[in-house]
Amino acid sequence: MIKIALDALGGDYAPDVVIDGAIRAVKEAEGKLHIVLCGPQEVVEQGLKKFGYEGDAISIVDAPEPVAMDDHPVEVLRKKPNSGLVTCVALQKKGLVQASVSAGNSGAMMASCLMLLGRTSENFARPPIGCIIPTVQGQMVMVDAGANVDEKAPVLVDFALAGSVFAECYLGIENPKVALLNMGEEEKKGPAVIQEAYQLLKNVDSINFIGNIEGREVLLGGADVLVCSGYTGNIVLKMIEGFYILHHELFGSIDTPAGRRFDETWDYRNAGGALLLGLNGTGLIAHGISDAKAIHQACLAAYRFASNGVAKKIGEKLSGMK
Amino acid sequence: MIKIALDALGGDYAPDVVIDGAIRAVKEAEGKLHIVLCGPQEVVEQGLKKFGYEGDAISIVDAPEPVAMDDHPVEVLRKKPNSGLVTCVALQKKGLVQASVSAGNSGAMMASCLMLLGRTSENFARPPIGCIIPTVQGQMVMVDAGANVDEKAPVLVDFALAGSVFAECYLGIENPKVALLNMGEEEKKGPAVIQEAYQLLKNVDSINFIGNIEGREVLLGGADVLVCSGYTGNIVLKMIEGFYILHHELFGSIDTPAGRRFDETWDYRNAGGALLLGLNGTGLIAHGISDAKAIHQACLAAYRFASNGVAKKIGEKLSGMK
Repeated sequence: MIKIALDALGGDYAPDVVIDGAIRAVKEAEGKLHIVLCGPQEVVEQGLKKFGYEGDAISIVDAPEPVAMDDHPVEVLRKKPNSGLVTCVALQKKGLVQASVSAGNSGAMMASCLMLLGRTSENFARPPIGCIIPTVQGQMVMVDAGANVDEKAPVLVDFALAGSVFAECYLGIENPKVALLNMGEEEKKGPAVIQEAYQLLKNVDSINFIGNIEGREVLLGGADVLVCSGYTGNIVLKMIEGFYILHHELFGSIDTPAGRRFDETWDYRNAGGALLLGLNGTGLIAHGISDAKAIHQACLAAYRFASNGVAKKIGEKLSGMK
Repeated sequence: MIKIALDALGGDYAPDVVIDGAIRAVKEAEGKLHIVLCGPQEVVEQGLKKFGYEGDAISIVDAPEPVAMDDHPVEVLRKKPNSGLVTCVALQKKGLVQASVSAGNSGAMMASCLMLLGRTSENFARPPIGCIIPTVQGQMVMVDAGANVDEKAPVLVDFALAGSVFAECYLGIENPKVALLNMGEEEKKGPAVIQEAYQLLKNVDSINFIGNIEGREVLLGGADVLVCSGYTGNIVLKMIEGFYILHHELFGSIDTPAGRRFDETWDYRNAGGALLLGLNGTGLIAHGISDAKAIHQACLAAYRFASNGVAKKIGEKLSGMK
């Protein structure tokens, strides 16, 4: 039995979609998953009643303080210890759950996980968000999906290490191909920090560095791990979402094998949240605009991460490497 | 009659697609466009014969030196004055043509235009590439599409000015809405340089600055001008191409009104090349992977830019602003 904690007030459409998504997830996991909803007791109770849930695979921990999307990340941990977000992580710290999920203030989730769960290695200065993005050829791990800004070149090398281990431990890809996102294939192209990272990556034995790839290959495939700044990663991720939305506005759901494959692969709500890499624990950040389907998938992803021990494996590998 | 010069050896599939595209463009423009193909005389003559062209709307200027994609931009101008690329720009400098188009080495095209045609204003330090990208709502000017790297905040303000004037002069949008591409809407989000540009842009009277937009809005719309670094702009542009390719790999051409609209709007080959902004002249950079259709559209775009006097209008506006 895996236990995960879920921030009941996290996300633009909380608490309804969060509670709905949690119910869907425990039903699908059939007795193998327990979800602790962290939020205002009465609100969560009413929500569970509204969606007609009466089982025992969901429990509540009262956490009445709301967190705003523009609350300062570090302040949230300090000043709102009784928020759903912080409570989720604190329960994991105490060993009561194996993973924590929030669709709320992602900076606050990052800061709370970092400070309560701690880094895998003190050398791993800026833990990134790793997420899995679809490509025509399959899947690609992208690091960083938006936790950091203004990264120096050695930090990009850390992202490459973390992404490589993530792809190996979670997607089962041996010796994953790692690429830098750049504006050309040539090593002398692009911003100074990317050129510097290129030179560093060439010399890291534990990374199968294949060079630069461009924006086209983000979609068409060509690497297993895509390394970029948090700023760029965030833009890439949201463009992929925009493309899915655009496609549906124009064509709706196309009822052919290709159409169904497209919906399954490219629907950002199936992505199931992004994992914080390089921490002693499992923290998942779901999208602020998550609907019940997205929360459902994020809970299942947290279940898989926790039951596979992905964070621990990444931690062991990274400690050995650095 | 508008005369434009076209680099016959520019692009991955030159000279065939260039010559084919030129023939299509002069046929469509019906006597209002003359194209000077700059390349090795014999090669171009053979190409024209191969495609069966016998009219007088195309002439040849012999320019035998080939330019490689990895030739150093400034060296090309210095060491290969008899290349098609440099000849195209030199003809404009002499007043013999009104625009120059190349699908070859874009850095070399940028450097040649900058040095031969000159800047609109000495204050406008780093002329960007402006291109028009499709959105669900219509069109958006993106600046910079890849001419620069490592821009400081004041350079991003120049991009905003140039893009704003471009949208006004070419797309006819009054008081265009200008947005910064960022990883969140809040002004305190994102890399330091973007946050600094935000503060500067708020205080520029001649720009209708509406704040940050995210990756989703690049596709879904929400601004008339999108300001970003050349690195980011290049990735955005190539992701849009990737979407189009991906859609076609999955679905082919969909023969419905929505499908035809998608193909017309999102086919990057219809984009017609990107314009160098802030120069005393009209330099167009077409895509390296251009096929005949793309070259055809780039020639027509050059024709429209030149006949509208877009570069001159942008120049006058920018000189007045700075």
